[in-house]
Amino acid sequence: MKVTFLGTSGAVPTTVRNPSGLLVEREGDRLLFDCGEGTQRQMMRYGTGFDIEHIFLTHMHGDHIFGLPGLTQTWDFQDREKPLAIHAPTGTRSRVEQLLSATGQSPSYPIRVTQVSAGDVVLDCEEYEVRAIQNNHRTNAVGYALVEDDRKGEFDREKAEKELGIPPGPKYSKLHDGTAIEHDGRTIQPEEVVGSPRTGRRLVYTGDTRPTDGIVDASTDADLLVHDGTFGKEHRERALNTAHSTAREAAQVADDAGVKRLALTHISTRYTGRVAELESEAAERFDGTLFVADDGMQVTVPYPDSDREFAIERLD
Amino acid sequence: MKVTFLGTSGAVPTTVRNPSGLLVEREGDRLLFDCGEGTQRQMMRYGTGFDIEHIFLTHMHGDHIFGLPGLTQTWDFQDREKPLAIHAPTGTRSRVEQLLSATGQSPSYPIRVTQVSAGDVVLDCEEYEVRAIQNNHRTNAVGYALVEDDRKGEFDREKAEKELGIPPGPKYSKLHDGTAIEHDGRTIQPEEVVGSPRTGRRLVYTGDTRPTDGIVDASTDADLLVHDGTFGKEHRERALNTAHSTAREAAQVADDAGVKRLALTHISTRYTGRVAELESEAAERFDGTLFVADDGMQVTVPYPDSDREFAIERLD
Repeated sequence: MKVTFLGTSGAVPTTVRNPSGLLVEREGDRLLFDCGEGTQRQMMRYGTGFDIEHIFLTHMHGDHIFGLPGLTQTWDFQDREKPLAIHAPTGTRSRVEQLLSATGQSPSYPIRVTQVSAGDVVLDCEEYEVRAIQNNHRTNAVGYALVEDDRKGEFDREKAEKELGIPPGPKYSKLHDGTAIEHDGRTIQPEEVVGSPRTGRRLVYTGDTRPTDGIVDASTDADLLVHDGTFGKEHRERALNTAHSTAREAAQVADDAGVKRLALTHISTRYTGRVAELESEAAERFDGTLFVADDGMQVTVPYPDSDREFAIERLD
Repeated sequence: MKVTFLGTSGAVPTTVRNPSGLLVEREGDRLLFDCGEGTQRQMMRYGTGFDIEHIFLTHMHGDHIFGLPGLTQTWDFQDREKPLAIHAPTGTRSRVEQLLSATGQSPSYPIRVTQVSAGDVVLDCEEYEVRAIQNNHRTNAVGYALVEDDRKGEFDREKAEKELGIPPGPKYSKLHDGTAIEHDGRTIQPEEVVGSPRTGRRLVYTGDTRPTDGIVDASTDADLLVHDGTFGKEHRERALNTAHSTAREAAQVADDAGVKRLALTHISTRYTGRVAELESEAAERFDGTLFVADDGMQVTVPYPDSDREFAIERLD
């Protein structure tokens, strides 16, 4: 699973930070979370690919949605036929539709706008789902959690073949899928050769938010938490007033939830050139992997039981 | 007068071309023509300054307007109080207003949307005016011409002082302003020491368009013509069907109007890495200064009677 930070600025972009956009690629599926102005060019710049069927909007503030009309228009120019689903918080459908038809013309491929509330399973795929989670930005808003299903336990091929004498073949698949088989006049239970189910990955993207219990709950043991970290502690008052979080507050959420890694995003222009301050404030509360996301960072999130390392690459 | 190309792509941007945007700076006045998605970041990137009171839209296609909500929102975050005027073709006011309130909130500084038709003097300043000109993009659309007033003739200080014996002082200003004075018992006419009025500069931006007589008329002797040059001659049919121009058609307009310099813009993605073809096709019809504009090009347009050279700088 690869997560590419397309835009990491706060409400106002800078020369190095585009407004919000996060692209998650999982086994060929591309999911776009938020779509600030310029997102389509960021996708081109970082070569993420354009084949997207689901866009998840956290809320309708401009820095999270103004890239939508341009991106959907570009797909139209590219003769897209594949349907697009846009998921947005309850009460915002007409606004999304208004934005899509801002020029007076709507794209000619089908677009479905669904309204989602915290707790909804927004997308239910074979191996994972995306859930809307409760956040708090004092407007109609949700965060999102991508939660993978447990995977089948490991199949102990050596035991099956050598110890139990089962020759490789369709019986292996049956056992791995949880069905008992008959072999040499006895019943072999799946548990004899298949380990316990392996936990899937969990990725949480909060959108703009104050710290909430809902985020802590949804982020329990998450492999990656991408949390609003707009301000440093010097601007805690401002974070309160604007319904954002400080880096340290985000780190407290990460610690409470026991997440493995925390990425801070939606960085205020005030911290241009000094994001190290945000990182060290956050480190006071969370001792896992921690970083301020930059545009063009691409992180690879391994399975919890994998030998692969968590990796951060800069695409630019 | 400095002209900065903020965006030179056709309908679909590329990694190196942003959608349309052109910033003209003249003696401290900054005028923005079109405002494609990402225009605000281009302004930051090229350091053009943000102090703009007038935006001129050629038409309401997405690649010319999707930067408007983000830019106007950023000004709001910067506590702008100064009024903003947005000039757009007749029949498009409600669409502009819809775009400005796409999030459900409008900026808190005053915004006036004026509707303009070809022939209108859209902005009338002390030393120049901006006129809407007739183009043809098969939608409500106009081009714009920035036309400077004639400047006063040169004052022949040497003749005034040495030949006519007038001592430096307020009489010089009077003469230069066109008023006769009395000196040594005789009347001195302004013509004796002031040359003929000097022609001002003329800049034309066509927006997306087929070649038209209206553009030729408005561009007569222009110092710079920025013309739609979306396609090469191989796609002349497509240019016709989409109401754009080929590079050669734009060059013919430039030649017919006797302009000094031609910049081609709104370049189709098809010509990425091969704009030299467009330049050489255009050169078959126009032998003045000619170039395909790139994002970040800044050209300095001198007065016709000045010794300063026309200069092209790349800001990136």
